[in-house]
Amino acid sequence: MTNTNRRFVLASRPTGFPTPQNFRLEESQIPQPAEGEVLLRTLYLSLDPYMRGRMNDAPSYAPPVNIDEVMIGGTVTRVEESKNPKFAVGDLVLSTNGWQDYAVSDGTGLARLDNDMPHPSLALGVMGMPGFTAYVGLLDIGEPKPGETVVVSAATGAVGSAVGQIAKLKGCRVIGVAGGAEKCRYAVEELGFDACIDRHEADLKEQLAAACPDGIDVYFENVGGAVFDAVLPLLNVHARIPVCGRIASYNATSLPDGPDRSPALIGMLLVKRIKMQGFIIFDHYESRYRDFVKDMTGWLAEGKVKYREDVVEGLENAPAAFIGMLNGKNFGKLVVKVS
Amino acid sequence: MTNTNRRFVLASRPTGFPTPQNFRLEESQIPQPAEGEVLLRTLYLSLDPYMRGRMNDAPSYAPPVNIDEVMIGGTVTRVEESKNPKFAVGDLVLSTNGWQDYAVSDGTGLARLDNDMPHPSLALGVMGMPGFTAYVGLLDIGEPKPGETVVVSAATGAVGSAVGQIAKLKGCRVIGVAGGAEKCRYAVEELGFDACIDRHEADLKEQLAAACPDGIDVYFENVGGAVFDAVLPLLNVHARIPVCGRIASYNATSLPDGPDRSPALIGMLLVKRIKMQGFIIFDHYESRYRDFVKDMTGWLAEGKVKYREDVVEGLENAPAAFIGMLNGKNFGKLVVKVS
Repeated sequence: MTNTNRRFVLASRPTGFPTPQNFRLEESQIPQPAEGEVLLRTLYLSLDPYMRGRMNDAPSYAPPVNIDEVMIGGTVTRVEESKNPKFAVGDLVLSTNGWQDYAVSDGTGLARLDNDMPHPSLALGVMGMPGFTAYVGLLDIGEPKPGETVVVSAATGAVGSAVGQIAKLKGCRVIGVAGGAEKCRYAVEELGFDACIDRHEADLKEQLAAACPDGIDVYFENVGGAVFDAVLPLLNVHARIPVCGRIASYNATSLPDGPDRSPALIGMLLVKRIKMQGFIIFDHYESRYRDFVKDMTGWLAEGKVKYREDVVEGLENAPAAFIGMLNGKNFGKLVVKVS
Repeated sequence: MTNTNRRFVLASRPTGFPTPQNFRLEESQIPQPAEGEVLLRTLYLSLDPYMRGRMNDAPSYAPPVNIDEVMIGGTVTRVEESKNPKFAVGDLVLSTNGWQDYAVSDGTGLARLDNDMPHPSLALGVMGMPGFTAYVGLLDIGEPKPGETVVVSAATGAVGSAVGQIAKLKGCRVIGVAGGAEKCRYAVEELGFDACIDRHEADLKEQLAAACPDGIDVYFENVGGAVFDAVLPLLNVHARIPVCGRIASYNATSLPDGPDRSPALIGMLLVKRIKMQGFIIFDHYESRYRDFVKDMTGWLAEGKVKYREDVVEGLENAPAAFIGMLNGKNFGKLVVKVS
């Protein structure tokens, strides 16, 4: 334990893709916990696509990160000092320290983890927010039925890999879309998807159509863009589209050229009686988190759901890893090992 | 009873708005019922926006009307001759004779009406398909809660007027959008809406915003176009959009100019966790029609739901009335009194 806390603050708001210059590494004194507070040391920092939205000064489901403020983020942390009777030194805790080594907390919003958890970073991935996102979006909005065809984009990512595997457990035919042959091979051979299409292929539309001879009943939307366009003509009557993310649009500085296709999109929702529904996982903890923990714990223990992490060593590498993720360079759930 | 059956067939497919030339009035012999069949004489023909879609040779939820085929349509009819033991001469029957005086039927798909029903055309309106459309779309997809704000477009039409009144019965604040001051006055003074905005006003957006100080929780979509654009920025988190119709687009021959706003639309669905769902009423008869008949019968008897019909006399006037409806010229449920 040194005397300093390293932290990344938002130095400037990106225009289009973020650059390293949008982040600034600062050193500050380690904060001291007041009465009722704990000092938390970051073990793992989660890097997730939603953080791109928080870098914009635009209305969204949560306020933006302010300039010079520490970048937000979910973290697995250890209690390093405690002046709160509910926490003991050494406790493993899920918190939102953000992109820094240390933070103090009065205990609000902290979730205890098993202190002897063999693989604590999973609390940021398949057992955490991304896994829960997959669970709620697929089951509650996607409502998959046995024999139906489920397509998931960003198929080897933290959310997509869980979506596809849960859909397989529910008896669906599962087609992934991912970036590159290696990810596609992994989705089929390791995760058990029925097929996976490389989104970089020029004939993405044709390949997806060939892999979905019975059309698409559920499209779990993580990316938007060309993948969404390839999915649209294949949607079946009564299809469901849980809208979880649109990473292909996050760095867009303007809308695509015309014509305006939104009337055609809505017309298709009507004629095919399609449900398209956006969701943000924070709305669902109260009603569904217990179910998720119970189910996912069982699936992991039985080896029915697999996961893959992309672990980056060192907080100093967080900006590059984050920018890489927005370009699809990560392979599996991206986490930073901070200490 | 004359010897001839008058019927309108589809003479040609419209490009853009239909013209009278797209329809051809023919005379044919009155068909003779075979064993097991009945001869039905049309009393009332329903004219509805969905018919425009059937005039196109495009994939939809139902096959198009073929060239030289009788225009489809719901009808209230009397049994004129019967060789089917289930029906007696004089029985009042809901059928799909289409745009003609007579048709034969083997009984499939016929629905009996009360023979002494004082106002049989209601079976084509508030007590029929449009009323049921309002009921299912609002209650099952819109899921209105007391105190929420519901906006309905085409507010004095067959569907919209029922939507707004049912929403009032459910304790909602109801804002209509309709074409013209007279319709708006009717929506407020007769139907009990809290406000109604004239869609022709240049400051539609501002007027709608002023009428919805708490935003919009349910938008019942009948029209698309400029009304949809005015609604979009006012939608609340967790809003629901039952997509029932898009009459503003039905006669479009190309998509609107760019930019392509569909990514922005989907992004908004995500950030605001909005559900947008198309539906076609034919999917819901089995599960919900009994509930509708029970509820709507009660509401009408108690005077809680009012209706307005726009009755056109004479089958020969059907094309002009239909084209007028696509221009918003009808005021209330449009029916043709055929005999």
